[in-house]
Amino acid sequence: MANNSNSYFNQVPQIQFEGSASTNPYAFKYYNPEEKIGGKTMEEQLRFSVAYWHTLTQDASDPFGAGTAQRPWDHFSGMDLAKARVEAAFEFIEKVQSPFFCFHDIDIAPEGSNLKETNQNIDTIVAMIKDYMKTSDVKLLWNTANMFTHQRFVSGAGTSSNAHTYAHAAAKVKKGLEVGKELGAENYVFWGGREGYESLLNTDMKLEFDNLGRFYHMALDYAKEINFDTQFLIEPKPKEPTTHQYDFDVATATSFLYQYGLQDHFKFNIEANHATLAGHTFEHELRTARISGMLGSVDANQGDPLLGWDTDEFPTDLYSATLAMYEILKNGGLGRGGLNFDAKIRRGSFKPEDLFHAHIAGMDSFAVGLKVANKMIEDKFFENIVEERYKTFNDEIGKKIVEGTTNFHELEKHAMEHGEIDHASGHLEKIKAGINQYLLRVNEL
Amino acid sequence: MANNSNSYFNQVPQIQFEGSASTNPYAFKYYNPEEKIGGKTMEEQLRFSVAYWHTLTQDASDPFGAGTAQRPWDHFSGMDLAKARVEAAFEFIEKVQSPFFCFHDIDIAPEGSNLKETNQNIDTIVAMIKDYMKTSDVKLLWNTANMFTHQRFVSGAGTSSNAHTYAHAAAKVKKGLEVGKELGAENYVFWGGREGYESLLNTDMKLEFDNLGRFYHMALDYAKEINFDTQFLIEPKPKEPTTHQYDFDVATATSFLYQYGLQDHFKFNIEANHATLAGHTFEHELRTARISGMLGSVDANQGDPLLGWDTDEFPTDLYSATLAMYEILKNGGLGRGGLNFDAKIRRGSFKPEDLFHAHIAGMDSFAVGLKVANKMIEDKFFENIVEERYKTFNDEIGKKIVEGTTNFHELEKHAMEHGEIDHASGHLEKIKAGINQYLLRVNEL
Amino acid sequence: MANNSNSYFNQVPQIQFEGSASTNPYAFKYYNPEEKIGGKTMEEQLRFSVAYWHTLTQDASDPFGAGTAQRPWDHFSGMDLAKARVEAAFEFIEKVQSPFFCFHDIDIAPEGSNLKETNQNIDTIVAMIKDYMKTSDVKLLWNTANMFTHQRFVSGAGTSSNAHTYAHAAAKVKKGLEVGKELGAENYVFWGGREGYESLLNTDMKLEFDNLGRFYHMALDYAKEINFDTQFLIEPKPKEPTTHQYDFDVATATSFLYQYGLQDHFKFNIEANHATLAGHTFEHELRTARISGMLGSVDANQGDPLLGWDTDEFPTDLYSATLAMYEILKNGGLGRGGLNFDAKIRRGSFKPEDLFHAHIAGMDSFAVGLKVANKMIEDKFFENIVEERYKTFNDEIGKKIVEGTTNFHELEKHAMEHGEIDHASGHLEKIKAGINQYLLRVNEL
Amino acid sequence: MANNSNSYFNQVPQIQFEGSASTNPYAFKYYNPEEKIGGKTMEEQLRFSVAYWHTLTQDASDPFGAGTAQRPWDHFSGMDLAKARVEAAFEFIEKVQSPFFCFHDIDIAPEGSNLKETNQNIDTIVAMIKDYMKTSDVKLLWNTANMFTHQRFVSGAGTSSNAHTYAHAAAKVKKGLEVGKELGAENYVFWGGREGYESLLNTDMKLEFDNLGRFYHMALDYAKEINFDTQFLIEPKPKEPTTHQYDFDVATATSFLYQYGLQDHFKFNIEANHATLAGHTFEHELRTARISGMLGSVDANQGDPLLGWDTDEFPTDLYSATLAMYEILKNGGLGRGGLNFDAKIRRGSFKPEDLFHAHIAGMDSFAVGLKVANKMIEDKFFENIVEERYKTFNDEIGKKIVEGTTNFHELEKHAMEHGEIDHASGHLEKIKAGINQYLLRVNEL
Repeated sequence: MANNSNSYFNQVPQIQFEGSASTNPYAFKYYNPEEKIGGKTMEEQLRFSVAYWHTLTQDASDPFGAGTAQRPWDHFSGMDLAKARVEAAFEFIEKVQSPFFCFHDIDIAPEGSNLKETNQNIDTIVAMIKDYMKTSDVKLLWNTANMFTHQRFVSGAGTSSNAHTYAHAAAKVKKGLEVGKELGAENYVFWGGREGYESLLNTDMKLEFDNLGRFYHMALDYAKEINFDTQFLIEPKPKEPTTHQYDFDVATATSFLYQYGLQDHFKFNIEANHATLAGHTFEHELRTARISGMLGSVDANQGDPLLGWDTDEFPTDLYSATLAMYEILKNGGLGRGGLNFDAKIRRGSFKPEDLFHAHIAGMDSFAVGLKVANKMIEDKFFENIVEERYKTFNDEIGKKIVEGTTNFHELEKHAMEHGEIDHASGHLEKIKAGINQYLLRVNEL
Repeated sequence: MANNSNSYFNQVPQIQFEGSASTNPYAFKYYNPEEKIGGKTMEEQLRFSVAYWHTLTQDASDPFGAGTAQRPWDHFSGMDLAKARVEAAFEFIEKVQSPFFCFHDIDIAPEGSNLKETNQNIDTIVAMIKDYMKTSDVKLLWNTANMFTHQRFVSGAGTSSNAHTYAHAAAKVKKGLEVGKELGAENYVFWGGREGYESLLNTDMKLEFDNLGRFYHMALDYAKEINFDTQFLIEPKPKEPTTHQYDFDVATATSFLYQYGLQDHFKFNIEANHATLAGHTFEHELRTARISGMLGSVDANQGDPLLGWDTDEFPTDLYSATLAMYEILKNGGLGRGGLNFDAKIRRGSFKPEDLFHAHIAGMDSFAVGLKVANKMIEDKFFENIVEERYKTFNDEIGKKIVEGTTNFHELEKHAMEHGEIDHASGHLEKIKAGINQYLLRVNEL
Repeated sequence: MANNSNSYFNQVPQIQFEGSASTNPYAFKYYNPEEKIGGKTMEEQLRFSVAYWHTLTQDASDPFGAGTAQRPWDHFSGMDLAKARVEAAFEFIEKVQSPFFCFHDIDIAPEGSNLKETNQNIDTIVAMIKDYMKTSDVKLLWNTANMFTHQRFVSGAGTSSNAHTYAHAAAKVKKGLEVGKELGAENYVFWGGREGYESLLNTDMKLEFDNLGRFYHMALDYAKEINFDTQFLIEPKPKEPTTHQYDFDVATATSFLYQYGLQDHFKFNIEANHATLAGHTFEHELRTARISGMLGSVDANQGDPLLGWDTDEFPTDLYSATLAMYEILKNGGLGRGGLNFDAKIRRGSFKPEDLFHAHIAGMDSFAVGLKVANKMIEDKFFENIVEERYKTFNDEIGKKIVEGTTNFHELEKHAMEHGEIDHASGHLEKIKAGINQYLLRVNEL
Repeated sequence: MANNSNSYFNQVPQIQFEGSASTNPYAFKYYNPEEKIGGKTMEEQLRFSVAYWHTLTQDASDPFGAGTAQRPWDHFSGMDLAKARVEAAFEFIEKVQSPFFCFHDIDIAPEGSNLKETNQNIDTIVAMIKDYMKTSDVKLLWNTANMFTHQRFVSGAGTSSNAHTYAHAAAKVKKGLEVGKELGAENYVFWGGREGYESLLNTDMKLEFDNLGRFYHMALDYAKEINFDTQFLIEPKPKEPTTHQYDFDVATATSFLYQYGLQDHFKFNIEANHATLAGHTFEHELRTARISGMLGSVDANQGDPLLGWDTDEFPTDLYSATLAMYEILKNGGLGRGGLNFDAKIRRGSFKPEDLFHAHIAGMDSFAVGLKVANKMIEDKFFENIVEERYKTFNDEIGKKIVEGTTNFHELEKHAMEHGEIDHASGHLEKIKAGINQYLLRVNEL
């Protein structure tokens, strides 16, 4: 444990790996940090991160009700509360063996009565965090600026209809980059909280896009100026809180980046629940980013497919975890990114120990996903399917198509001469049965 | 095998249980018909059924494209085709070891140029089926009348805006009941194909409901008249093909049954994909029917949560299969009902062998679900959670509430005197981790 | 104006009818309270109501941001705030010429540190409201108890997993009935805020239904005991805040009422945005309730069909308003119910004057709907369409079907003898063009 | 009328403009081709087009039922049917006064037993169409190749997993470009019928994208080679028939075009119902294309927001038509594009005259939209709202932001010095009331 003397989670022991048959709720059944999978340890492959806002700051309120969360630091307020949360954070993160954490500026320190005061509060807490980090293995995966909670961001930040808000947002990102450098953050994330519109009826979409393009260029310039060597990430989301978010999904944000000459400077932070709200699977968004070389990091959570809002549940779906880990392994890992639990306990799971149960559930699920996906890659499960299905592209006219050495004349001639086309079955039902079999045999790996 | 000499699936061997490590695609990994789970054999517990329409009749067309299915009986037509399908059906059903099958009238025999001719066609095929059944163990789970494909049903059948169509529908159900009796069907199903509306703007909803109520009463009367001892089932669906289907979900159909005095004469045939289209989980619909004593049978399939139409995929999601089997076991089994694969191969899975892969995938998934759910019931996994969470209803004021012996005066007095309320956490994340652990240990059961 | 001397909306004049060409934003273009439409004044037909919570209490916060609403009473707190709101409420309601208002208990008065204190706060404000009502024409359409905001309702009220919460809820409804009687409320509404489940995995659905049935019976008993002659209403909603709300839609709640012998004691309060979240049109829910004789009152708002949560927008869609008013007129009006604006200004419409703009927009929209629907009824627009489309039910076999004097034998005989069936076209496109024409000619009415 | 002597629609008169009070169902109430709106005639502004497939070819079948459409050419078959449809097409198009039409290759001519035969069939019909066009004012808005109906396109065309299918698709597009040139088509459209995936599990997405990029480049090369001066359009759709379509929406397709260096060679054909299936409004897609200079043409229809599939209804929603026409007018019109009714009569509207009712409904709706949008532009209704809302970008720091002459240092300094930010209300409710007022006064324009 780090250098604090207070304990907020006395009742919970250090979480350790005990294996798949353990009945200890405070033990990992699958996540074994030192175990090597695919040539690296699980810790290196998974790069888990605790989200400060969901675990330390939020109170489990919802639009219809007050916060239910019972937290051992509830009796503090103001900067004392902020400090207690830092203590609790390091205790928690170390107890669940997460190598990383992430935060928004106002997760760690309260806003002051003006920007200067806010920055002073942040400086105080950043210094405290830096101090903790000296004696801890915990690292900062990424930080960001909250530009959606305060009233001033009512119509966005970098796409606000108000120039003063835009300037305020710039000041916050400037500070965020300085904090990231100070704490050695691996990445800096832009989630466009209210960058979008409530209604097109009163919106100048072109001006807002142009302003956002300029905003990102200034951010890049400033990071360069202060020699902050980080990876910039955009986190797409299609809607909520606004009716339409400009970074709807990976493809939409890619289109924006190209139109503003930013495509070489950003990768994506992909969140499962944002993918499904956009009408995509999690793995679709990961694949889309991966094949463009833009898969940067992951917000690991899950949604409820029957609900139309971001539920940010802890990820326990083993299918989703397996297919996500397949994309990540095919990407050669996450590089400077990680698996950040942008996930919150349900409003009915209000006890402090639920924070542990939830993280264990999520970490074990991705550990299973890693083991199963790695085994499938070793066996070339998907690769063999694809190889067989696309084999006509390996020679003759198919090869020419892939090499770009044919044209419509030659293709027409081929089509005229070629008789009936014999297709390979997609065998999707057999593939799904195969995935189930891999999954249910994970304990044999 | 039954008494046909032709084989349509020579290339596929008899499907047998080989266990979880088998690499034979034509073997069950989990479905072991004779294995006892929860005091009955798997065959008795699961009561699988093959859907004639998806497996023998359909061609894998979709609204944008022609049929892709390659079937060994494609060269036949008319009544010869119908007869070939019967031969193929019994070969297929026996090879996949399904104890039951189901059909609509026009799945088994082509429509003639008028009702009389159609009924003659049906009679011919029913006689042939009956003959096959004499030497086979295959039984008829249910039959029904297709009252949605022909143009005459453009605005429904029992809720048609046209009295002649209504009469035609009555004639078809009359015949269906006779056929069901002839073949010993366990159930008779009403799926309201076009019983609903395309638009309220030209619809007399009250008249249509009244007519449907009368239709069902006449059907009950006729079954009684011919001494057909069967179980009547309504299959809810919320939309598609019509904009609004009257049997939207279990609760909606229950409301209808009560309003027309039919609640004691019908149970439900619940389809997974229809549940999700209605905004519910599969298990929600099963539970809703179960606690009303109206869970009759199941159409086992699954949908794609990101698509807004009925995809009727073969069920491979092990979470869904487990939770469904939990409801079914808590129901004391399915009684006269069964698990009918109202599921179709994907349009890209067009080879005959895909029909086997798909059924194996579905049967193994439900076998896993059965084993896991049964183990969880033996361990009182969910029961202990509920017992703990609702314990305040076991004595004092809680007991009075449950026994119905209190009133608002006493409850107010209790509330005034009782201090802060101490809630039990719902521990949902811990529960989900527990389910994963049960699932991944199925091979140890 | 009522007997308060303070003004909170000095800058806004009394709203008056000025006609369709008026350019005054603070005037009605269509709502003319004294104008007679269909034999009654618009005021009598529409029975508008202001929702206390959205207009007086809420602050325009959302799950991602702080409240933006700028309200002239923001400087008050505690009971002073509650009193200021009453003053502002009567000023507002009278200025927009709404004959009714509605509230939840804690909209009007803050919760105390215990139930007794809370009830005292309520009593103080109820006395103040009653005093205002003496010199005002404003009446109470309905009141209700908020049983979802406080932590104690984390798992519901009448369906809570905790008996003490159940008792607390009973005490609140008891008080609510007393307050309703005191202020002469026309209706008492149950919206099941958290009556539902977050997950089936830890829920005893049967016990929760049984408890809710007992709760309603006790409420009926108590209202009778205190001679409170009111109309009880259930307000269906399918989801949000819980994953599944038990009163999913009109049909679902009807099923519940029948199963617990309550069907003669409740009608429905139907909200447009709840209808669309359930997968229905507003008019579908109104029709479903109407033909069961259970259309009680309306929460007038609208949703965004592309968003999956309750946006509670002010109703401005003239198609929806017209079709809603058609159902209401066919119902013979709303009886003791009304059109309550359960609608909130957008978070970006944070000025006090936006409250007026929003109500004017909503009232004018329903006034247009009333005028158009009434004209269509006078012209028998829909009635003629239905008459033509269902004409085969007027004689011969059709008449027998409707009269219930036929059977499957006779219907089969008719079907055998009847040749091809000649259907009437549904002409939906022509009908929609007709509706547009009626709508665009409203200024000529 | 053109040079055919047969009439298929004798019972329907030539459709003429009669004004808003007309009770003649076979007359326009708003579409007056010669009336000038915004400096051009309605005919020039709206550039209506009839979709050959929905009006001449389709039979109103759906996935659950046979075709219901009653067409005067039903007794023909093969090439005779194709020729009869050409005769009927010109009669229809001229009777509804549509200046344009559109088709897929196999809408106009049946597929032969091989590609050569198919092309011969096409040549025969193209010659006939060309002949008709000589004596008619009707022009070809666009043509395209159907690459989704035949079994060979089971897994796409330009993104097929089969090289022979790819070649076949190339041959079809080659022919399509030749036909387009022959008939003077203004545009050539790519709607990626099955360009997407059924499941990621067996898909090589990167290869498919690369192949599609190469396909488009070859198409551009060939059009250049044959001197076919046309405008290339991509028509986005998010799903259906495939689970995921690669051209999900305008932004997604734009990202693709940039990644493959194609952004200067394509514009978009935007369909309303495809927009809503993607989670966007129609006007959002139009705006997104417009501000990128890529708004090419429009498929005018509408969907049902409560259904999850493409319903292709005739457009009658006046809000949608008005906001679409606003975008089109702000775009300076549609250039070489048009408003193509990619819309089908409901299955219940099966009479030939319903084709007229439907087109009249759609044309009148867009005529209303044009008149209202033009008036709003003349009054600078939206422009004034935007001007007021964004006014802080007109000088000082705002001007520097827009001009790109500031940086994070200066913006931080401004934010530090600037006090509380005063936002303008978005006034959305007032705006919506304003739109209603404009709409209801259209008869005064």
